[in-house]
Parts: sequence; structure tokens; C-alpha cells
Amino acid sequence: MKLGIIGSGNIGGSIGKWASKFGYEVTFSARNIKHAEEAAKEAGNNSKYGNSHNAVSSADLVLLAVPYPAVKDVLKEIGPELRGKILIDATNPLNQDYSGLSIGFTTSAAEEIQKMVPEAKVVKAFNSVFSSIYESQHSELSGKKIAVFYAGDDSSAKAKTAELITKLGFEAVDAGGLQSARTIEPLAMLNITLGYAQGHGTNIGFSFLH
Amino acid sequence: MKLGIIGSGNIGGSIGKWASKFGYEVTFSARNIKHAEEAAKEAGNNSKYGNSHNAVSSADLVLLAVPYPAVKDVLKEIGPELRGKILIDATNPLNQDYSGLSIGFTTSAAEEIQKMVPEAKVVKAFNSVFSSIYESQHSELSGKKIAVFYAGDDSSAKAKTAELITKLGFEAVDAGGLQSARTIEPLAMLNITLGYAQGHGTNIGFSFLH
Repeated sequence: MKLGIIGSGNIGGSIGKWASKFGYEVTFSARNIKHAEEAAKEAGNNSKYGNSHNAVSSADLVLLAVPYPAVKDVLKEIGPELRGKILIDATNPLNQDYSGLSIGFTTSAAEEIQKMVPEAKVVKAFNSVFSSIYESQHSELSGKKIAVFYAGDDSSAKAKTAELITKLGFEAVDAGGLQSARTIEPLAMLNITLGYAQGHGTNIGFSFLH
Repeated sequence: MKLGIIGSGNIGGSIGKWASKFGYEVTFSARNIKHAEEAAKEAGNNSKYGNSHNAVSSADLVLLAVPYPAVKDVLKEIGPELRGKILIDATNPLNQDYSGLSIGFTTSAAEEIQKMVPEAKVVKAFNSVFSSIYESQHSELSGKKIAVFYAGDDSSAKAKTAELITKLGFEAVDAGGLQSARTIEPLAMLNITLGYAQGHGTNIGFSFLH
């Protein structure tokens, strides 16, 4: 299996090196070809390097691992060659200070609710676990505590919420200010997708490994 | 600690019943007061029931667990009483067929990329794990495989991506069609928030318990 790497930085470089150990024939590319060369050298296992065209031309799998703002230019370059190819997108559209995503995101239910009741201390919590878990009153699966992520702007309100989460046996994971509801609400959506559309059922959850 | 429940359905009813076991003085409310009464009866532990005003009036913590479309009306009713109170928001702004969120979401990097190269088979993957994990070439933490969620519209492209993920030792979790990048990209943002802003560092990850 031939793996072409577009962007040989932290993500692309590391995954390429690692994959080369498992028999993938890796070709690294990078805007600065020296980075691609270094990655190929460190990878060994007959890894190659070159420009983006070299990485794509014979690849079965192409890993896109450039910073999101660079995506458009890169795809203009190699777009035509990607016809029918598998393009693994590892990008994240982070904004400049890494405090959020630059596209796709505008608000969350929690933030809208806070606007409706500005003098309440809103804390997002309990939304990313199926109700059947709460009904069954178990907070562990496969020997791990299910994580209940919470977010809010008032620290004492968060502390009391965390206390309730913890008493029920979950791991209370502080996800930051209320704006982090923009990450916790999609997590619930992921949970629902896995449970229903993907057929895992509702006896599922996420744990936070740290 | 007094816990007022707004909406005694699957989520609110279950959490209220469970919390009552840990000494929380719970007051259930629901649009249909019979549901609140039933929940209180099942909970026992001196749990009470009433209308939303009763649930809020003396509560230290108020759990909002009504369907998102009902939020506005409920908050109009009890808004003034929430001044200075802790409101735990357990809602999810799901759209009508539960296929996505109705607010806050518009697109994802993966979908934009697919538009740029319509004839490539785009698969979202590898974006929700820190590069330092890839660098260190370990795919387990605390004895659990880190989950690498992937999403795409082409099943053979997804299968090859899953194969790579699995070879590296991660748990490959199929999150559905490419639109599910709208849940996986926020997951990366959550990961970044936990790692940096919340101080857990980058040797972290999520696992999927099922």
C-alpha cells in the first residue's frame, strides 16, 4: 500500500514514519522539501520524498496534513491528480489563537440559553451521555469511568455541577468556558451517530485518557 | 443540596432519581405534571414534584432537560427566577431527524475540501489526536486504545483508512458519512482545549467505550 504525505510536519511526518514500519511505502512531501527529505531519512524503510506531485502520483492513500489555511493552494496544485484517489483529511480549521474553529461553528445551545437568561449561571453538562446510562445508574463501561464533560463561565457553578457528576460516579471533565459547549454538543451528536446510525446501541460512552 | 428538575423525561427524570440517592433534595417538574409526580414517586427519598416555579424556587442547582425546541418557552416562564442560580443545560439542539445539530453548525473542513476536489474520496481521520502521540508511536493510554474517529462517503476509501488506523494500534471508530466531520473536528478542538487551556498536556486522548 502506497501512502503519500502532503505536509511532513508534526502530524504528516509522524504518521508517515510510523506507517512505514507496517509496510506502507511512504512518499513524503512538504512545502520546504528539506523537511520531506529529513522525514524520509528518519523513516527509513525505503521511504521516498519529493514534491506534492511525487507524493500523489502513485499513492493509494494520500494524507493531507498541512495547516488548514494552506489547504486551498495545495489542492489547486494537486487537485486534478486526486481524481478517484483516497484523500485522508487530517486538518483542523483552527482559528489563529487556537481558541476555536474558524469554520462551521457559530454558536451552541448553551450560549443561546445564557443569552435568554443572562443572570443565570449556565453550565453545560450531562448532554453527551445516553439517558439509558442514567436510567441504569451505572457510570462505568469496560472498566472505565464514562466522562461527563462540562463547560461554563462561573467557577462556583461549575464546581457544584462537577460535584453532582462525580457523586454519580462519572469522571467530571472541565472543558473550559461556556463557549466549549461548541465542542460538547457535537460530541453528543457523535454519540448519537455511533449509537443509532452506526449501530453500537446506547450502552456506550467516551472516556478521557490522561 | 437542592436540585430542581425542569423536564422529567428520559434525561431529567433519570438524573433526578439517581441524584436523590446521594442526598440531593430533588423537585421534579414537567409540562405534564403527572410525569413529574411519577418521577418523584419512583425516586422516593422525600423527592417532591410540582410546576417549574416550584422546581426552581428553592433550588441550588436547576437541571434543564427539556427538548431544545421547548427551551425558549420554558425560560420565558422561569427566567426571572433564575437570577443568580446555577442552570445546568443538558439540552442538545438536534434537528428533527437527529441527523445533526440545528444551530451552531454549518460545515466542516472535510466538506469544504471535498468541494474543492470533488473527484477525490475524502475521509476525515487522524485530526483528533495530538501529534505527540503519533511521534511517540504509542496508541494506548491507561491500558485503553485511543479512538481515532473517521468519516467519509466512500466505503472502500474508509476501509483502507480504517486499516491504516488499526495497523498503528488505535481503535478505528466509523463515525459515518463525511458530514460527521462536523462532530470530529469539534472533538479535536475539545482535545486541544483539554491539553492546553485545561492543562492536561498532550499525552491524552479519548476512548470509545462500548
